[in-house]
Amino acid sequence: MAEKPSLPKGTRDFGVMEMRRRAYILDIIRKQFELHGFQPIETPAMENLSVLTGKYGDEGDQLLYKIINSGDYLKKTTADDYQKGSGFLLPKISEKGLRYDLTVPFARYVALNHHELTFPFKRYQIQPVWRADRPQKGRYREFLQCDMDTVGTDALFCEAEYLSVITRVFSELGIQQYEILINSRKILQGVANVLNIPDRLTELATAIDKWDKIGEEGVYNELIERGISEDGITKLKRLFENDGLDDWEAQLEEEGRRGIYEIREIFSYFEMLQEPPHKVRFDPHLARGLTYYTGAIIEVKPLGVKMGSIGGGGRYDDLTGMFGLNNMSGVGFSFGIDRIYDVMEESGLFDDVIAHPADVLILNFGKTSLDASMAILNRLRESGIRSEFYPEEIKIKKQLNYANKKDIPFVIFPGEEELASGKVNLKNFRSGMQEEIEIEEIIEVVKKLSGNLTR
Amino acid sequence: MAEKPSLPKGTRDFGVMEMRRRAYILDIIRKQFELHGFQPIETPAMENLSVLTGKYGDEGDQLLYKIINSGDYLKKTTADDYQKGSGFLLPKISEKGLRYDLTVPFARYVALNHHELTFPFKRYQIQPVWRADRPQKGRYREFLQCDMDTVGTDALFCEAEYLSVITRVFSELGIQQYEILINSRKILQGVANVLNIPDRLTELATAIDKWDKIGEEGVYNELIERGISEDGITKLKRLFENDGLDDWEAQLEEEGRRGIYEIREIFSYFEMLQEPPHKVRFDPHLARGLTYYTGAIIEVKPLGVKMGSIGGGGRYDDLTGMFGLNNMSGVGFSFGIDRIYDVMEESGLFDDVIAHPADVLILNFGKTSLDASMAILNRLRESGIRSEFYPEEIKIKKQLNYANKKDIPFVIFPGEEELASGKVNLKNFRSGMQEEIEIEEIIEVVKKLSGNLTR
Repeated sequence: MAEKPSLPKGTRDFGVMEMRRRAYILDIIRKQFELHGFQPIETPAMENLSVLTGKYGDEGDQLLYKIINSGDYLKKTTADDYQKGSGFLLPKISEKGLRYDLTVPFARYVALNHHELTFPFKRYQIQPVWRADRPQKGRYREFLQCDMDTVGTDALFCEAEYLSVITRVFSELGIQQYEILINSRKILQGVANVLNIPDRLTELATAIDKWDKIGEEGVYNELIERGISEDGITKLKRLFENDGLDDWEAQLEEEGRRGIYEIREIFSYFEMLQEPPHKVRFDPHLARGLTYYTGAIIEVKPLGVKMGSIGGGGRYDDLTGMFGLNNMSGVGFSFGIDRIYDVMEESGLFDDVIAHPADVLILNFGKTSLDASMAILNRLRESGIRSEFYPEEIKIKKQLNYANKKDIPFVIFPGEEELASGKVNLKNFRSGMQEEIEIEEIIEVVKKLSGNLTR
Repeated sequence: MAEKPSLPKGTRDFGVMEMRRRAYILDIIRKQFELHGFQPIETPAMENLSVLTGKYGDEGDQLLYKIINSGDYLKKTTADDYQKGSGFLLPKISEKGLRYDLTVPFARYVALNHHELTFPFKRYQIQPVWRADRPQKGRYREFLQCDMDTVGTDALFCEAEYLSVITRVFSELGIQQYEILINSRKILQGVANVLNIPDRLTELATAIDKWDKIGEEGVYNELIERGISEDGITKLKRLFENDGLDDWEAQLEEEGRRGIYEIREIFSYFEMLQEPPHKVRFDPHLARGLTYYTGAIIEVKPLGVKMGSIGGGGRYDDLTGMFGLNNMSGVGFSFGIDRIYDVMEESGLFDDVIAHPADVLILNFGKTSLDASMAILNRLRESGIRSEFYPEEIKIKKQLNYANKKDIPFVIFPGEEELASGKVNLKNFRSGMQEEIEIEEIIEVVKKLSGNLTR
């Protein structure tokens, strides 16, 4: 009956090492969320399709994982429904889907609970999401999202605070080579206004967003093909000649200037918060997420490695309108855990993360030393030292092999003779040293030797 | 376009308070797992249905959530397939399902990775599972499982170590009123042997398992109906007259006595580990999980409240055989987080769990005090004090109302005059006290006043 098991495409197991490294990243992010007054919530993996559908565009709807109704799921269907095809049959056999991101479930949460919440409401949420995307390197069908959102205020202090959280997270992770880019939908709209194409913001933004990929000329060519006038291209070229706020302000009209003002305000708060200003840069090429962002747009890019964004977010003016609760302005940001992991791995920043399962292994010397071994084991654990006892009385060489393979740094030999005089042999696998120590002193010695081995 | 959003039946949002309380429980469990040498892994929410199906009995297969294949999911089907009904069509439109527990995914993980693992392998896993069960009080369609498993050894030390983890977890949670029941499949098989119905263990166990519900007479009546002889019932009555290991040993034959020996061994280890023996009790009525347990059966019951098990587990001899890897004996145990939560809530054990989002709120006094406020905010956060700045310059009364509603204990008034002399007013919302303090001393004062407010 043995079958060769396999994992669904685009999904992953996380082994011990990956778990510890991910926990290391998440603990640091969670700590900064907490220090900044964000509070944890969680929502269910399954949402009603009525909540999810239509929120991510047509493509997004395709990428939603749908769950078949329980029981005789065909009972509400007819052969005629079947003939009409997959799309027609779907709503009759499926009512629920897996969440696609954390933003829509959060909006649903706020809409459902707004009477009990005190605004501004700052929440963080760290949960997996699922997308039926084509799997490729670095893109998975199940991946963790790690979001913070502030809703119920349009104060620009929020954006600055986000820059502060981001700066502190990367600083604590030890990541130096990155920058935070900021732009505003209002500035991009300002550009569209200057070009006399106020209604074609999306088109304009789609072209500008390709700056990194197809280069300046590529972008202008695309816009010319789309019918932007020579005069417009000239204006664009002048705008993008440099990225100084003053220059941009001088060339934009009212709405664009409002965007510039907001960026200045955000920078001002950020500097008052005494964060390093060189990490943040106004980048007029940043043109992502315009289907939902209405103000600031934020993106974090690693430097020196060929990799996309490791975090992104922005201001949205109407998060919960889709669920009937209006005027709920907010800011959101999402850390890209998988890519942060990759950056840290490439930069050797995980070296201090402990992966060994225990600090101490007590060898199994059989019945005669059992009582003493258990007492020592008990004491070690009560003192907060992660400890194991080898459960079987097998050859010592094999037991040592276990400690070695698992990288357990300390091994206790509970020899009968030593025990009789209140001692045991302690071997330090890292240094190779072995010494006889008083049982009474084990805790102290191990704590001293292990230093900060334990996370 | 506003729709009234709703949650799928049997699923829950976790708000801030619940999140903090659940984190409190999970942190304690995780700490004990770590102290005992268990290591974390995670597996994907989706597994191939070939991995899940047939592992939980027919009923379990019905309760699996199945995911519709992406794209044109009907493409491999015909109208004829449709006519044959839900069960026939299913495997053609669905290849994946949501995990039903953590044990089968763990077995799959071990089978896939056994070449890289060092045995005995002790892992813990804390992830949600999904069951299309009928929702009712305390039973959800998505719920968290919290499992430890040790595989690759049949040493009875493992079972004792589990009793130790359980004892320490409940002790640290502050739960006093509970007991750990232990039995063995071998003892139940011994009973079947004594009754001369060695092949009818499942039937016998199903009846015995109802002891709590239908009482002793109920169980005997059910067994009589099932054709157990009068002589058999007499033997049963004598066995169940008391639950002393000696008495049971005297009345059982070889296999049953082997079970008794094992329980004694486990108790002996447990006592050597210096755990309180009165928490653990041999209970011959415990007859759960016989489709998978082959040795010890463990169950934790709260006392003094009408509630089922708050944790359960046991020894299985062949975890990974279903995936082609034989001879992998192990022990597993699962903490029932939702019920532990309920027990703690009813017993007032969450009183010390902090739910307020920050320890300090700095009021927004407008432009003139902004610089100083930001500097203080920065310093508080760098010192590890969870702090907020009210983002909008609104009436102070409203800002205080925010602090009050959110139960933020300390509020800083950055008055212009006080700032000029290097001071601020600090209000302690808990005591009602308000005092002027030096900015330089804020950290010290808040840390001292808040004591262990911060978890």
